[in-house]
Amino acid sequence: MKKEKGLLLVLSGPAGVGKGTVCGALRKEKTAIQYSVSATTRAPRAGEVDGINYFFKTREQFEKMIEQDELLEWAEYVGNYYGTPIDYVRETINKGHDIILEIEVQGALKVKERFPEGVFIFLMPPSLAELRNRIVGRGTETEDIINKRMTVAREEIEMMEKYDYVVENDEVNLAVDRIKAIVTAEHCKRERLIEKYKQLVEVD
Amino acid sequence: MKKEKGLLLVLSGPAGVGKGTVCGALRKEKTAIQYSVSATTRAPRAGEVDGINYFFKTREQFEKMIEQDELLEWAEYVGNYYGTPIDYVRETINKGHDIILEIEVQGALKVKERFPEGVFIFLMPPSLAELRNRIVGRGTETEDIINKRMTVAREEIEMMEKYDYVVENDEVNLAVDRIKAIVTAEHCKRERLIEKYKQLVEVD
Repeated sequence: MKKEKGLLLVLSGPAGVGKGTVCGALRKEKTAIQYSVSATTRAPRAGEVDGINYFFKTREQFEKMIEQDELLEWAEYVGNYYGTPIDYVRETINKGHDIILEIEVQGALKVKERFPEGVFIFLMPPSLAELRNRIVGRGTETEDIINKRMTVAREEIEMMEKYDYVVENDEVNLAVDRIKAIVTAEHCKRERLIEKYKQLVEVD
Repeated sequence: MKKEKGLLLVLSGPAGVGKGTVCGALRKEKTAIQYSVSATTRAPRAGEVDGINYFFKTREQFEKMIEQDELLEWAEYVGNYYGTPIDYVRETINKGHDIILEIEVQGALKVKERFPEGVFIFLMPPSLAELRNRIVGRGTETEDIINKRMTVAREEIEMMEKYDYVVENDEVNLAVDRIKAIVTAEHCKRERLIEKYKQLVEVD
Protein backbone atom coordinates (compact mmCIF):
# COMPACT_ATOMS: atom_id res chain seq x y z
CA MET A 1 0.00 0.00 0.00
CA LYS A 2 1.23 3.46 -0.93
CA LYS A 3 2.83 5.16 2.03
CA GLU A 4 1.20 8.36 3.21
CA LYS A 5 3.48 11.39 3.30
CA GLY A 6 4.05 13.38 6.46
CA LEU A 7 2.89 16.98 6.87
CA LEU A 8 4.98 20.13 6.91
CA LEU A 9 3.39 22.22 9.66
CA VAL A 10 4.33 25.88 9.76
CA LEU A 11 3.54 27.62 13.04
CA SER A 12 3.75 31.37 12.77
CA GLY A 13 2.29 34.60 14.11
CA PRO A 14 3.24 38.05 15.36
CA ALA A 15 6.20 38.52 17.73
CA GLY A 16 5.06 38.19 21.33
CA VAL A 17 2.13 35.87 20.61
CA GLY A 18 3.91 32.91 22.21
CA LYS A 19 5.08 30.73 19.28
CA GLY A 20 8.11 29.46 21.22
CA THR A 21 6.07 28.68 24.34
CA VAL A 22 3.39 26.81 22.38
CA CYS A 23 5.99 24.89 20.35
CA GLY A 24 7.86 23.98 23.56
CA ALA A 25 4.64 22.75 25.20
CA LEU A 26 3.80 20.69 22.11
CA ARG A 27 7.27 19.18 22.26
CA LYS A 28 6.75 18.12 25.88
CA GLU A 29 3.67 16.13 24.90
CA LYS A 30 5.89 13.71 23.00
CA THR A 31 3.70 13.46 19.91
CA ALA A 32 5.20 11.90 16.78
CA ILE A 33 5.77 15.38 15.33
CA GLN A 34 9.40 16.15 14.54
CA TYR A 35 10.97 19.56 14.90
CA SER A 36 12.72 21.24 12.03
CA VAL A 37 16.48 21.69 12.38
CA SER A 38 17.84 24.96 10.97
CA ALA A 39 21.12 25.52 9.22
CA THR A 40 23.23 28.34 10.69
CA THR A 41 26.62 29.97 10.41
CA ARG A 42 26.60 30.75 14.13
CA ALA A 43 29.28 28.86 16.09
CA PRO A 44 28.03 25.88 18.12
CA ARG A 45 27.55 26.59 21.83
CA ALA A 46 28.64 24.13 24.51
CA GLY A 47 26.60 20.94 24.24
CA GLU A 48 25.04 21.76 20.87
CA VAL A 49 25.19 18.87 18.42
CA ASP A 50 25.39 19.21 14.63
CA GLY A 51 22.23 17.77 13.03
CA ILE A 52 20.30 17.91 16.33
CA ASN A 53 20.31 21.54 17.45
CA TYR A 54 21.44 23.01 14.14
CA PHE A 55 23.22 22.09 10.96
CA PHE A 56 26.40 24.10 11.48
CA LYS A 57 27.75 25.60 8.26
CA THR A 58 30.53 27.97 7.20
CA ARG A 59 29.47 31.22 5.52
CA GLU A 60 30.75 29.80 2.27
CA GLN A 61 28.70 26.64 2.61
CA PHE A 62 25.60 28.62 3.57
CA GLU A 63 25.93 31.03 0.66
CA LYS A 64 26.28 28.09 -1.70
CA MET A 65 23.02 26.69 -0.26
CA ILE A 66 21.33 30.04 -0.95
CA GLU A 67 22.69 30.10 -4.51
CA GLN A 68 21.59 26.55 -5.23
CA ASP A 69 18.11 27.21 -3.86
CA GLU A 70 18.50 24.59 -1.13
CA LEU A 71 16.73 26.59 1.58
CA LEU A 72 12.98 26.88 2.16
CA GLU A 73 13.66 30.29 3.68
CA TRP A 74 16.63 32.07 5.21
CA ALA A 75 17.47 35.31 7.00
CA GLU A 76 20.52 37.08 8.38
CA TYR A 77 20.37 38.00 12.05
CA VAL A 78 23.14 39.71 14.06
CA GLY A 79 25.72 38.79 11.44
CA ASN A 80 24.78 35.13 11.12
CA TYR A 81 22.70 33.24 8.61
CA TYR A 82 19.79 31.04 9.66
CA GLY A 83 17.67 28.95 7.29
CA THR A 84 15.66 25.79 6.73
CA PRO A 85 17.23 23.16 4.44
CA ILE A 86 14.60 21.97 1.99
CA ASP A 87 16.15 18.50 1.60
CA TYR A 88 15.86 17.84 5.32
CA VAL A 89 12.16 18.76 5.25
CA ARG A 90 11.47 16.65 2.14
CA GLU A 91 13.30 13.60 3.49
CA THR A 92 11.37 13.80 6.76
CA ILE A 93 7.92 13.98 5.15
CA ASN A 94 8.82 11.36 2.54
CA LYS A 95 9.55 8.98 5.42
CA GLY A 96 5.97 9.64 6.56
CA HIS A 97 6.88 11.86 9.53
CA ASP A 98 5.21 15.17 10.31
CA ILE A 99 7.58 18.08 10.85
CA ILE A 100 6.89 21.46 12.44
CA LEU A 101 8.63 24.71 11.66
CA GLU A 102 8.24 27.64 14.08
CA ILE A 103 8.91 30.85 12.22
CA GLU A 104 8.02 34.55 11.98
CA VAL A 105 5.42 35.73 9.46
CA GLN A 106 7.78 36.89 6.68
CA GLY A 107 9.63 33.58 6.76
CA ALA A 108 6.38 31.61 6.74
CA LEU A 109 5.22 33.42 3.61
CA LYS A 110 8.51 32.52 1.90
CA VAL A 111 8.02 28.88 2.89
CA LYS A 112 4.53 29.03 1.42
CA GLU A 113 5.91 30.06 -1.99
CA ARG A 114 8.23 27.07 -2.07
CA PHE A 115 5.98 24.60 -0.29
CA PRO A 116 2.30 25.50 -0.79
CA GLU A 117 1.22 22.00 0.31
CA GLY A 118 2.35 22.81 3.86
CA VAL A 119 -0.19 23.33 6.64
CA PHE A 120 0.06 26.99 7.66
CA ILE A 121 -1.11 27.82 11.18
CA PHE A 122 -1.37 31.41 12.37
CA LEU A 123 -1.07 31.76 16.13
CA MET A 124 -3.30 34.61 17.22
CA PRO A 125 -3.38 36.65 20.43
CA PRO A 126 -6.82 36.77 22.11
CA SER A 127 -6.76 40.55 21.50
CA LEU A 128 -4.32 43.25 20.46
CA ALA A 129 -4.50 44.62 24.02
CA GLU A 130 -3.33 41.23 25.29
CA LEU A 131 -0.50 41.14 22.72
CA ARG A 132 0.64 44.56 23.95
CA ASN A 133 0.54 43.24 27.54
CA ARG A 134 2.73 40.32 26.56
CA ILE A 135 5.27 42.53 24.81
CA VAL A 136 5.25 45.06 27.69
CA GLY A 137 5.48 42.16 30.15
CA ARG A 138 8.91 41.24 28.84
CA GLY A 139 10.05 44.53 30.31
CA THR A 140 12.79 44.95 27.73
CA GLU A 141 11.19 47.32 25.26
CA THR A 142 10.72 51.11 25.18
CA GLU A 143 7.29 52.65 24.51
CA ASP A 144 8.44 53.58 21.01
CA ILE A 145 9.54 50.04 20.18
CA ILE A 146 6.32 48.63 21.63
CA ASN A 147 4.28 50.90 19.34
CA LYS A 148 6.33 49.88 16.31
CA ARG A 149 5.88 46.21 17.15
CA MET A 150 2.13 46.72 17.50
CA THR A 151 2.02 48.30 14.03
CA VAL A 152 3.92 45.33 12.60
CA ALA A 153 1.57 42.95 14.45
CA ARG A 154 -1.48 44.60 12.87
CA GLU A 155 0.10 44.22 9.42
CA GLU A 156 0.94 40.61 10.13
CA ILE A 157 -2.61 39.86 11.24
CA GLU A 158 -3.74 41.15 7.84
CA MET A 159 -1.57 38.39 6.32
CA MET A 160 -3.65 35.78 8.07
CA GLU A 161 -5.48 35.18 4.81
CA LYS A 162 -2.43 33.33 3.47
CA TYR A 163 -2.81 30.74 6.23
CA ASP A 164 -4.93 27.60 6.45
CA TYR A 165 -5.75 27.79 10.15
CA VAL A 166 -5.95 30.36 12.90
CA VAL A 167 -5.26 29.12 16.43
CA GLU A 168 -6.02 31.43 19.31
CA ASN A 169 -3.34 31.37 21.99
CA ASP A 170 -5.63 32.22 24.90
CA GLU A 171 -4.13 29.40 26.99
CA VAL A 172 -1.06 27.43 25.97
CA ASN A 173 -2.61 24.00 26.62
CA LEU A 174 -5.70 24.90 24.58
CA ALA A 175 -3.55 26.14 21.70
CA VAL A 176 -1.55 22.88 21.83
CA ASP A 177 -4.76 20.82 21.76
CA ARG A 178 -5.98 22.76 18.74
CA ILE A 179 -2.72 22.18 16.87
CA LYS A 180 -2.86 18.45 17.67
CA ALA A 181 -6.46 18.36 16.38
CA ILE A 182 -5.40 20.10 13.16
CA VAL A 183 -2.69 17.47 12.63
CA THR A 184 -5.18 14.63 13.16
CA ALA A 185 -7.77 16.24 10.88
CA GLU A 186 -5.21 16.93 8.14
CA HIS A 187 -4.32 13.24 8.14
CA CYS A 188 -8.03 12.46 7.61
CA LYS A 189 -8.36 14.77 4.59
CA ARG A 190 -9.88 12.96 1.67
CA GLU A 191 -7.36 14.23 -0.86
CA ARG A 192 -4.51 12.74 1.19
CA LEU A 193 -6.21 9.36 1.57
CA ILE A 194 -8.09 8.72 -1.62
CA GLU A 195 -5.23 6.98 -3.43
CA LYS A 196 -4.68 4.67 -0.48
CA TYR A 197 -8.33 3.70 -0.40
CA LYS A 198 -8.70 3.30 -4.13
CA GLN A 199 -5.91 0.74 -3.89
CA LEU A 200 -7.80 -0.96 -1.08
CA VAL A 201 -10.84 -1.43 -3.30
CA GLU A 202 -8.70 -2.78 -6.14
CA VAL A 203 -6.54 -5.23 -4.20
CA ASP A 204 -9.07 -6.41 -1.66
CA MET B 1 -18.20 40.66 17.50
CA LYS B 2 -19.78 38.66 14.71
CA LYS B 3 -20.99 35.32 15.97
CA GLU B 4 -19.39 32.28 14.43
CA LYS B 5 -21.80 29.84 12.81
CA GLY B 6 -21.97 26.21 13.85
CA LEU B 7 -20.99 23.36 11.54
CA LEU B 8 -23.22 20.87 9.77
CA LEU B 9 -21.34 17.59 10.09
CA VAL B 10 -22.47 14.76 7.84
CA LEU B 11 -21.27 11.31 8.92
CA SER B 12 -21.74 8.74 6.22
CA GLY B 13 -20.28 5.56 4.78
CA PRO B 14 -21.22 2.10 3.50
CA ALA B 15 -23.77 -0.03 5.33
CA GLY B 16 -22.06 -2.14 7.98
CA VAL B 17 -19.15 0.24 8.58
CA GLY B 18 -20.49 1.25 12.01
CA LYS B 19 -22.00 4.73 11.55
CA GLY B 20 -24.58 4.17 14.27
CA THR B 21 -22.04 2.77 16.74
CA VAL B 22 -19.60 5.65 16.18
CA CYS B 23 -22.37 8.25 16.42
CA GLY B 24 -23.65 6.64 19.62
CA ALA B 25 -20.15 6.65 21.15
CA LEU B 26 -19.69 10.30 20.17
CA ARG B 27 -23.00 11.10 21.82
CA LYS B 28 -21.87 9.47 25.08
CA GLU B 29 -18.86 11.80 25.22
CA LYS B 30 -21.19 14.73 25.85
CA THR B 31 -19.50 17.12 23.44
CA ALA B 32 -21.37 20.28 22.46
CA ILE B 33 -22.38 18.66 19.16
CA GLN B 34 -26.13 18.40 18.64
CA TYR B 35 -27.83 15.54 16.84
CA SER B 36 -30.11 16.11 13.92
CA VAL B 37 -33.79 15.31 14.46
CA SER B 38 -35.55 13.75 11.46
CA ALA B 39 -39.11 14.30 10.34
CA THR B 40 -41.11 11.10 9.82
CA THR B 41 -44.60 9.85 9.07
CA ARG B 42 -44.03 6.79 11.23
CA ALA B 43 -46.27 6.69 14.34
CA PRO B 44 -44.53 7.60 17.61
CA ARG B 45 -43.51 4.63 19.74
CA ALA B 46 -44.01 4.57 23.51
CA GLY B 47 -41.85 7.23 25.12
CA GLU B 48 -40.90 9.00 21.90
CA VAL B 49 -41.28 12.76 22.09
CA ASP B 50 -42.08 15.04 19.14
CA GLY B 51 -39.15 17.38 18.47
CA ILE B 52 -36.74 15.20 20.46
CA ASN B 53 -36.77 11.76 18.82
CA TYR B 54 -38.50 12.83 15.63
CA PHE B 55 -40.70 15.52 14.24
CA PHE B 56 -43.87 13.48 13.74
CA LYS B 57 -45.81 14.44 10.62
CA THR B 58 -48.85 13.21 8.70
CA ARG B 59 -48.26 12.01 5.14
CA GLU B 60 -49.98 15.16 3.94
CA GLN B 61 -47.70 17.41 5.99
CA PHE B 62 -44.61 15.51 4.86
CA GLU B 63 -45.54 15.64 1.20
CA LYS B 64 -46.11 19.38 1.53
CA MET B 65 -42.56 19.67 2.99
CA ILE B 66 -41.21 17.77 -0.03
CA GLU B 67 -43.14 20.02 -2.43
CA GLN B 68 -41.96 23.20 -0.73
CA ASP B 69 -38.35 22.01 -0.72
CA GLU B 70 -38.13 22.09 3.07
CA LEU B 71 -36.06 18.91 3.41
CA LEU B 72 -32.30 18.54 3.03
CA GLU B 73 -32.93 14.97 1.94
CA TRP B 74 -35.72 12.45 2.32
CA ALA B 75 -36.46 8.80 1.57
CA GLU B 76 -39.35 6.38 1.87
CA TYR B 77 -38.68 3.24 3.88
CA VAL B 78 -41.18 0.45 4.61
CA GLY B 79 -44.11 2.71 3.74
CA ASN B 80 -43.01 5.69 5.83
CA TYR B 81 -41.23 8.90 4.96
CA TYR B 82 -38.06 10.02 6.73
CA GLY B 83 -36.21 13.28 6.08
CA THR B 84 -34.13 16.13 7.49
CA PRO B 85 -35.89 19.51 7.86
CA ILE B 86 -33.62 22.20 6.47
CA ASP B 87 -35.00 24.93 8.78
CA TYR B 88 -34.08 22.93 11.85
CA VAL B 89 -30.49 22.54 10.61
CA ARG B 90 -30.19 26.23 9.68
CA GLU B 91 -31.59 27.45 12.99
CA THR B 92 -29.17 25.23 14.92
CA ILE B 93 -26.05 26.40 13.10
CA ASN B 94 -27.19 30.03 13.11
CA LYS B 95 -27.31 29.80 16.92
CA GLY B 96 -23.63 28.76 16.74
CA HIS B 97 -24.19 25.08 17.53
CA ASP B 98 -22.61 22.22 15.60
CA ILE B 99 -25.03 19.57 14.40
CA ILE B 100 -24.30 16.05 13.16
CA LEU B 101 -26.33 14.07 10.68
CA GLU B 102 -25.74 10.31 10.38
CA ILE B 103 -26.88 9.13 7.00
CA GLU B 104 -26.25 6.63 4.19
CA VAL B 105 -24.18 7.63 1.16
CA GLN B 106 -27.02 8.48 -1.26
CA GLY B 107 -28.63 10.75 1.33
CA ALA B 108 -25.31 12.43 2.12
CA LEU B 109 -24.79 13.28 -1.54
CA LYS B 110 -28.25 14.88 -1.66
CA VAL B 111 -27.39 16.92 1.44
CA LYS B 112 -24.20 18.05 -0.27
CA GLU B 113 -26.17 19.47 -3.21
CA ARG B 114 -28.31 21.58 -0.88
CA PHE B 115 -25.65 22.35 1.71
CA PRO B 116 -22.16 22.26 0.17
CA GLU B 117 -20.71 24.18 3.15
CA GLY B 118 -21.29 21.11 5.35
CA VAL B 119 -18.36 19.04 6.60
CA PHE B 120 -18.67 15.64 4.92
CA ILE B 121 -17.01 12.73 6.71
CA PHE B 122 -16.75 9.31 5.10
CA LEU B 123 -16.48 6.49 7.63
CA MET B 124 -14.27 3.81 6.13
CA PRO B 125 -13.80 0.16 7.06
CA PRO B 126 -10.14 -0.84 7.67
CA SER B 127 -10.52 -3.20 4.69
CA LEU B 128 -13.24 -4.65 2.50
CA ALA B 129 -12.56 -8.05 4.12
CA GLU B 130 -13.33 -6.50 7.51
CA LEU B 131 -16.52 -4.89 6.14
CA ARG B 132 -17.64 -8.31 4.90
CA ASN B 133 -16.90 -9.75 8.35
CA ARG B 134 -19.04 -7.09 9.97
CA ILE B 135 -21.96 -7.73 7.61
CA VAL B 136 -21.62 -11.52 7.99
CA GLY B 137 -21.31 -11.03 11.76
CA ARG B 138 -24.85 -9.72 11.94
CA GLY B 139 -25.92 -13.24 10.95
CA THR B 140 -29.03 -12.00 9.20
CA GLU B 141 -27.97 -11.94 5.58
CA THR B 142 -27.72 -14.65 2.91
CA GLU B 143 -24.53 -15.09 0.84
CA ASP B 144 -26.29 -13.51 -2.13
CA ILE B 145 -27.31 -10.42 -0.17
CA ILE B 146 -23.82 -10.13 1.33
CA ASN B 147 -22.30 -10.12 -2.16
CA LYS B 148 -24.76 -7.47 -3.35
CA ARG B 149 -23.98 -5.31 -0.33
CA MET B 150 -20.25 -5.65 -0.99
CA THR B 151 -20.79 -4.48 -4.58
CA VAL B 152 -22.72 -1.46 -3.30
CA ALA B 153 -19.99 -0.78 -0.73
CA ARG B 154 -17.34 -0.72 -3.47
CA GLU B 155 -19.43 1.75 -5.44
CA GLU B 156 -19.93 3.88 -2.36
CA ILE B 157 -16.21 3.93 -1.60
CA GLU B 158 -15.73 5.33 -5.10
CA MET B 159 -17.96 8.25 -4.00
CA MET B 160 -15.48 9.12 -1.31
CA GLU B 161 -14.15 11.87 -3.53
CA LYS B 162 -17.26 13.93 -2.77
CA TYR B 163 -16.30 14.03 0.90
CA ASP B 164 -13.98 16.32 2.86
CA TYR B 165 -12.60 13.76 5.28
CA VAL B 166 -12.10 10.01 5.48
CA VAL B 167 -12.15 8.50 8.97
CA GLU B 168 -11.08 4.91 9.36
CA ASN B 169 -13.29 2.97 11.76
CA ASP B 170 -10.63 0.55 12.92
CA GLU B 171 -11.60 1.12 16.57
CA VAL B 172 -14.68 3.04 17.65
CA ASN B 173 -12.85 5.23 20.19
CA LEU B 174 -10.17 6.14 17.63
CA ALA B 175 -12.83 7.03 15.05
CA VAL B 176 -14.58 9.21 17.65
CA ASP B 177 -11.30 10.98 18.50
CA ARG B 178 -10.69 11.67 14.81
CA ILE B 179 -14.17 13.14 14.37
CA LYS B 180 -13.70 15.36 17.44
CA ALA B 181 -10.34 16.52 16.02
CA ILE B 182 -11.99 17.34 12.68
CA VAL B 183 -14.59 19.47 14.49
CA THR B 184 -11.88 21.36 16.41
CA ALA B 185 -9.79 21.87 13.27
CA GLU B 186 -12.78 23.06 11.22
CA HIS B 187 -13.44 25.72 13.86
CA CYS B 188 -9.82 26.87 13.42
CA LYS B 189 -10.10 27.22 9.63
CA ARG B 190 -8.95 30.62 8.50
CA GLU B 191 -11.93 31.24 6.23
CA ARG B 192 -14.32 30.79 9.16
CA LEU B 193 -12.36 33.12 11.45
CA ILE B 194 -10.96 35.85 9.27
CA GLU B 195 -13.95 38.20 9.59
CA LYS B 196 -13.89 37.88 13.37
CA TYR B 197 -10.20 38.76 13.52
CA LYS B 198 -10.39 41.59 11.03
CA GLN B 199 -12.94 43.15 13.38
CA LEU B 200 -10.52 42.61 16.25
CA VAL B 201 -7.82 44.63 14.48
CA GLU B 202 -10.30 47.42 13.70
CA VAL B 203 -11.96 47.81 17.09
CA ASP B 204 -8.98 47.12 19.32
